[in-house]
Amino acid sequence: MGAERSGPVKRTLESYYTTIEDFPAEGILFRDITSVLGDADGFKLAIDEMLKAIEGEAIDVIIGIEARGFMFAPVLAYELGKPFVPVRKAGKLPRETVSATCTLEYGEATIEMHADAFPPGSKVLIVDDLIATGGTAKATAQMVEELGGVVSSFLFVSELTYLNGRDLLEGYKVHSLVTF
Amino acid sequence: MGAERSGPVKRTLESYYTTIEDFPAEGILFRDITSVLGDADGFKLAIDEMLKAIEGEAIDVIIGIEARGFMFAPVLAYELGKPFVPVRKAGKLPRETVSATCTLEYGEATIEMHADAFPPGSKVLIVDDLIATGGTAKATAQMVEELGGVVSSFLFVSELTYLNGRDLLEGYKVHSLVTF
Repeated sequence: MGAERSGPVKRTLESYYTTIEDFPAEGILFRDITSVLGDADGFKLAIDEMLKAIEGEAIDVIIGIEARGFMFAPVLAYELGKPFVPVRKAGKLPRETVSATCTLEYGEATIEMHADAFPPGSKVLIVDDLIATGGTAKATAQMVEELGGVVSSFLFVSELTYLNGRDLLEGYKVHSLVTF
Repeated sequence: MGAERSGPVKRTLESYYTTIEDFPAEGILFRDITSVLGDADGFKLAIDEMLKAIEGEAIDVIIGIEARGFMFAPVLAYELGKPFVPVRKAGKLPRETVSATCTLEYGEATIEMHADAFPPGSKVLIVDDLIATGGTAKATAQMVEELGGVVSSFLFVSELTYLNGRDLLEGYKVHSLVTF
């Protein structure tokens, strides 16, 4: 019997990441998603796996969190025919907003969303590239609920499990594709 | 003869914009694209018109400029099966970068792109939500050319014609969908 034939090696999503030491501060191992985005196959794989993760979920609106969440959420919104709503750093949105302050991996930040972003009762998918401490995600959920929305789930491309961000989102459905 | 029957009114892309007075500074009329994105039909129309504008162009890589360019460029990249490269504000990208400083409508900024973002000779589409003075777009083209890339065209959702940004991009192909 000869050796089994195998097709082309199928790369994992994780394999498209680059790892950078000491960024943005000493001692931090930064998982760089731009090398996923910068490869047409890697980017397609990321989006296709995101779509698969939320298959069958009832979703009315898709939120992306500034800035890297913007690289994914609008693609999903377009693919699924849903509205896209940005969550931005304070002072960037021109209309009336709700806001929340969150503790991040490297500091603190206030984030905002338009107060008329979606009708009350809307089922909202919250998208970001990464869950670290979960602070931004949790603050986003608070704003969604303040506006009468319901968080259908959180969807992250990657998750830093050692920061336990998932604990902060207890009670919510959380998807992540790659864990570090 | 009776009145002609007409189908449902087809909305223009422009009609999805909201106009806000005195944002971000007094005297400025802000054309808010979040209301385009926040409407599934509006967002689909924007993306479909963007795809139509560049139909047939030879493109290897699609660049989006932080932050609102990120809401469009990745969608086009996914649809066309191309890599997406972000141009970001200084200090955000983890690997070796090239940079350029530009004068904006409301100040000055340094922007960066990864030095290994694409191979020399690549045909690059530069995407942003808006062309105002053209400063960021021009600075992005300089970085693309510094890395040996060729700008295939610029693609903006909207254009503030009274700021004459197109003049700064003389010699380049420039697409915009809505003019204010």
